[in-house]
Amino acid sequence: MSPSALDELIDALRCLPGVGPKSAQRMAYHLLQRDQRGAGRLARAMGQALEVLRHCERCNNFAETDVCVRCADPQRDATQLCVVEMPADLAMMEQTHAYRGLYYVLMGRLSPLDGIGPRELRLDKLIARAGDGLVREVILATNFTNEGEATAHTIAELLGARGLQVSRLSRGVPVGGELEHTDTGTIAQALVERRTL
Amino acid sequence: MSPSALDELIDALRCLPGVGPKSAQRMAYHLLQRDQRGAGRLARAMGQALEVLRHCERCNNFAETDVCVRCADPQRDATQLCVVEMPADLAMMEQTHAYRGLYYVLMGRLSPLDGIGPRELRLDKLIARAGDGLVREVILATNFTNEGEATAHTIAELLGARGLQVSRLSRGVPVGGELEHTDTGTIAQALVERRTL
Ligand SMILES: [Zn+2]
Ligand SMILES: [Zn+2]
Repeated sequence: MSPSALDELIDALRCLPGVGPKSAQRMAYHLLQRDQRGAGRLARAMGQALEVLRHCERCNNFAETDVCVRCADPQRDATQLCVVEMPADLAMMEQTHAYRGLYYVLMGRLSPLDGIGPRELRLDKLIARAGDGLVREVILATNFTNEGEATAHTIAELLGARGLQVSRLSRGVPVGGELEHTDTGTIAQALVERRTL
Repeated sequence: MSPSALDELIDALRCLPGVGPKSAQRMAYHLLQRDQRGAGRLARAMGQALEVLRHCERCNNFAETDVCVRCADPQRDATQLCVVEMPADLAMMEQTHAYRGLYYVLMGRLSPLDGIGPRELRLDKLIARAGDGLVREVILATNFTNEGEATAHTIAELLGARGLQVSRLSRGVPVGGELEHTDTGTIAQALVERRTL
C-alpha cells in the first residue's frame, strides 16, 4: 500500500536539515491547515530552483546562467580571487565594500569527520580557476574555525606549489572591540600578527 | 526585478513554522547542494498533498476522500464521539486500543490570544456532527493545557445545552501535559476513568 499524501509529505519534510519526525508533522499540519498559500509557493519555488539553478562555471556560486553576473562584470579586478566557504560569506565580503576582485565559493569546507576531503570539495576546480593566467593573488576568507583554518591551510599549500601568491584574512581584535572583552587566544594572535606602523 | 530562484526559495521556506531567515538559507543550501532528490520529492509531496487532501465531512481529520476510512467503518461504535485537538492526538488514542468509537478532530483549540474563538474553530460543525441522532456520548480528549481545558469546558457547555452526555478524559494525564507526549498506558487509564460532566 502506498503511503497517504499526508504521510508522504511528513516524510518528505524530513529531508530538511534539523527536522525530525515531530517537527515534520507539526510543519505539515501547519502548512495544510493554516498556510496552503505558503505551501503552494514553497512547492513551486523548490521546483523552480531545482530547474534553473546551477553552479557558475567560474566562481562555483549558485547562478541561473553558466557564468554569473559578478564573474561577467568587467569592472571587477580579475587579478584577485577571494575564496569563501558559502554564498553567505560572499555576501558578507561584498557588504564591506572593501573588495573589488572576484570570488570562488567552495560550497563547504574540508571536514574529514564528515568524509569531505579535497576530492569531495572539488579543490581541483578551484586550482583550475586560480590558474587562469589572470589571477595574481588568492585571498583565503574561509572561516576561522578549525575546519575553516584547515581548509585554508590545504588550499594555500596546493596553490603555493603552483607559484600563486596566497594570502589570508588577518586575525585580531575586532574593530571597536575592547581588550577586556576579547578572548585571550584572539589577543595572543593579534600580538603575533602585529603590523609595523 | 523579480527575485532570483534562490532568493525566492529561501523566502518561501520561511512559511515553515519556526524557520527564520538564517535557517531558511541553511535549508536552501542543503537541499540544492546535498539533497536535490529530497528537494524534488518534497516539492512533489507538497503539491500532491495540497491537491488531494481535504477534511473528512464527518470527523474533520485530513482525508483523501469525502468521508475517511475510519468514519466509514461499520465496526466502529457510532454512539461514542471522541473530540481531539489534532490528528496526532487521534493517533495516540488509537494506539491505546481502548477506544472503538468515532472521532472529531478540531484541528486546533480555542486560543483567544491568537484570535481563535468558537467561530474560528468551527464548533458549529462539531455541534452538527454530535447531533446526528446516533451519538450518545461525546468524550472530550483535548489536551490538559489551559487552552485545551478551556476548549473542553466550552464544548461541554454547548453540547450539554443540547441534551448530549459529555465526558472528559480523567486527569490521569499529567496537568499541563500534551497527549502526544504521554504514554499510552496513562491515556488508556484516563479513558477508563473518564468523568461525566
Ligand atoms: Zn560566478
Ligand atoms: Zn472521518
